[in-house]
Amino acid sequence: MKKNRILTPGPTPVPQEVLLSMAKPTIHHRTAQFRKIFKEVNDNLKYVFKTQNDIFTLSSSGTGAMEAAVVNLLSPGDTAICVGGGKFAERWSEICKTYSIKTIAIDVEWGNVVSPTEIEKTLDENKQIKVVFTTLSETSTGVLTDIKKIAQITGKRDVVIVTDAISALGGEELETDAWGVDVVVSGSQKGLMSPPGLAFCSVSPKAWKLVAVSKSPRYYFDFRIAKKALDKGDTAFTPAITLCIGLNTALKMIKEETLENVIQRQGRLAAALRRAMQALGLELFASIPANVVTSVCLPKGIDGDVLVAMMQNVYGVTIAGGQAHLKGKIIRIGSMGHMNEFDIITGISALELVLCKMGYKFEHGVGVGAAQKELLKSE
Amino acid sequence: MKKNRILTPGPTPVPQEVLLSMAKPTIHHRTAQFRKIFKEVNDNLKYVFKTQNDIFTLSSSGTGAMEAAVVNLLSPGDTAICVGGGKFAERWSEICKTYSIKTIAIDVEWGNVVSPTEIEKTLDENKQIKVVFTTLSETSTGVLTDIKKIAQITGKRDVVIVTDAISALGGEELETDAWGVDVVVSGSQKGLMSPPGLAFCSVSPKAWKLVAVSKSPRYYFDFRIAKKALDKGDTAFTPAITLCIGLNTALKMIKEETLENVIQRQGRLAAALRRAMQALGLELFASIPANVVTSVCLPKGIDGDVLVAMMQNVYGVTIAGGQAHLKGKIIRIGSMGHMNEFDIITGISALELVLCKMGYKFEHGVGVGAAQKELLKSE
Repeated sequence: MKKNRILTPGPTPVPQEVLLSMAKPTIHHRTAQFRKIFKEVNDNLKYVFKTQNDIFTLSSSGTGAMEAAVVNLLSPGDTAICVGGGKFAERWSEICKTYSIKTIAIDVEWGNVVSPTEIEKTLDENKQIKVVFTTLSETSTGVLTDIKKIAQITGKRDVVIVTDAISALGGEELETDAWGVDVVVSGSQKGLMSPPGLAFCSVSPKAWKLVAVSKSPRYYFDFRIAKKALDKGDTAFTPAITLCIGLNTALKMIKEETLENVIQRQGRLAAALRRAMQALGLELFASIPANVVTSVCLPKGIDGDVLVAMMQNVYGVTIAGGQAHLKGKIIRIGSMGHMNEFDIITGISALELVLCKMGYKFEHGVGVGAAQKELLKSE
Repeated sequence: MKKNRILTPGPTPVPQEVLLSMAKPTIHHRTAQFRKIFKEVNDNLKYVFKTQNDIFTLSSSGTGAMEAAVVNLLSPGDTAICVGGGKFAERWSEICKTYSIKTIAIDVEWGNVVSPTEIEKTLDENKQIKVVFTTLSETSTGVLTDIKKIAQITGKRDVVIVTDAISALGGEELETDAWGVDVVVSGSQKGLMSPPGLAFCSVSPKAWKLVAVSKSPRYYFDFRIAKKALDKGDTAFTPAITLCIGLNTALKMIKEETLENVIQRQGRLAAALRRAMQALGLELFASIPANVVTSVCLPKGIDGDVLVAMMQNVYGVTIAGGQAHLKGKIIRIGSMGHMNEFDIITGISALELVLCKMGYKFEHGVGVGAAQKELLKSE
């Protein structure tokens, strides 16, 4: 008898409270009833984003919000820095190219982070750059980038910084206003403990100047249309109503626990995971590891894809494998969202069981034991 | 952030499929729609009880079904053997005394099991005995009694055997017809993976002869009234409709997994639990341990009530403490019902965390490791 247990870096487990709130009969969106919910969502999103900027809620995946950021900020022929270093970082380049935006790529080896000084140098040498596209926690590699420092650099210039916080929001430190991050992009299905289907973009006044002049074609993702609706407490187009209702419940749960405590919990779980991996003799992949997702190198002879499939097929425990050239070489374990100690322990135990089946030698329980010690230390 | 995780010897976790089936709008019970469900329930209960006898479904706790067995089989002044050895075994005596039935108690030290030859001897010496009340798995001590052997003794005599299988059904071997167990009593909230509120009594033709002549006062629990209704596919009184619907879903899940596989799974989980306790240096309490509940002695200086409270309050993991004179001295961990490997691992890990907090010395992860080894052995 298998039970599905998700420890992936998104989607993440949805709390029962959220599921139940979404199971109520659908209400209409052009009603005071929905507007009240949507106002609460917007207020609480601002709490989680730590911003006073407008946040647009889109019915799309996170990629939709990334595309929205690109087309609203830049016109064909404009120039932007796209910081690489992972599957999702590289998506910024792909979208920019689709809209004929000139990109200056800053290559980063997967598993490493960009050096802020390299961005500074590139900006100094290319005065035409309007936007820098970055990633706070890179879901494909598990690294955490120092967005605060990069925003200090863009903040002194006539340059807008855009950050993909899809996997980071609600799990990593992020001070949208205090750091001066102009546009923050996120999604519903990670730290926000909701099903996939909603994406978010916060837009600063500085970024808004670009929105006003962008000539890129856009309709569904047009922030000008979204802004008109938002000012009236509405969405421009039919919102994913039940997802908004679920998100409202999830955001209230985060507010009740407090964002600080949520982030501290994620950090504690990630530290326990990292200790477990080290105790099992497994090397961490990320040079600067994020807390929301832990990437782990596999020893020779252990195929990551086989390992991930066995964990799922034999034990019902889902983690993620490596993407692109890391396929089969790393595994990624999510600790974001609605997770506590025993979700992590379950993941480690299932990993131990499968590693043993695959012939890897270690003392049974050594990973779980190391995690327990770390958990007790940080209680 | 705590999540409720139940590892008690009842109630047990209710699968989502069961919960969702119960969340549908209530239907009326005097309809073809409900009769179809109730027929499926009865057929599948017979599959789980391994009997062709009538099984009466009562809207009550398990104690209600125990009382029903007593009042339907015996008249004031009749004599019965009540086998002791636990809180629930002793309930048979209490109910018999309430109805002025003479009881011959066979005392059993808690943690031990009755010797079938002692029952045989008592029956030989007291020809007036009409019923022997027994317990298959004693929830308060975690012992498993050899009902098969006792039924062989009663089977050769004009004596009816009644067995409390409330915590055993769907977790321990039980062959109602093949062993000749006249009356089997059970409940919905343990191996049957449903919420509390339903209880069951199977009644053999041999037992029915006593029902026909019993002079004990009874109305709600009268098997004669229940039988008339059952023959028409009904219940005599308003059934707990949504619980019957949930039970129907749960029984279908058991049938799909097959009863043999369910019992094997429970055995495998219990073996892993026992290995973990031994690896932690903890002694098992039961001389012959049941699989559905594992009772564990605590070392000096560790108060079981404090331990149980800490597991619940700090980690959201609920196990049970000792009852009556065992209060504070043992803990009881349930592995019955909708449980798999990682429920057990979670229980062991939470126990390790709390034992460590309470000053008990052991190597972190040694319990989980021992459980993992046992689980791999029995895959």
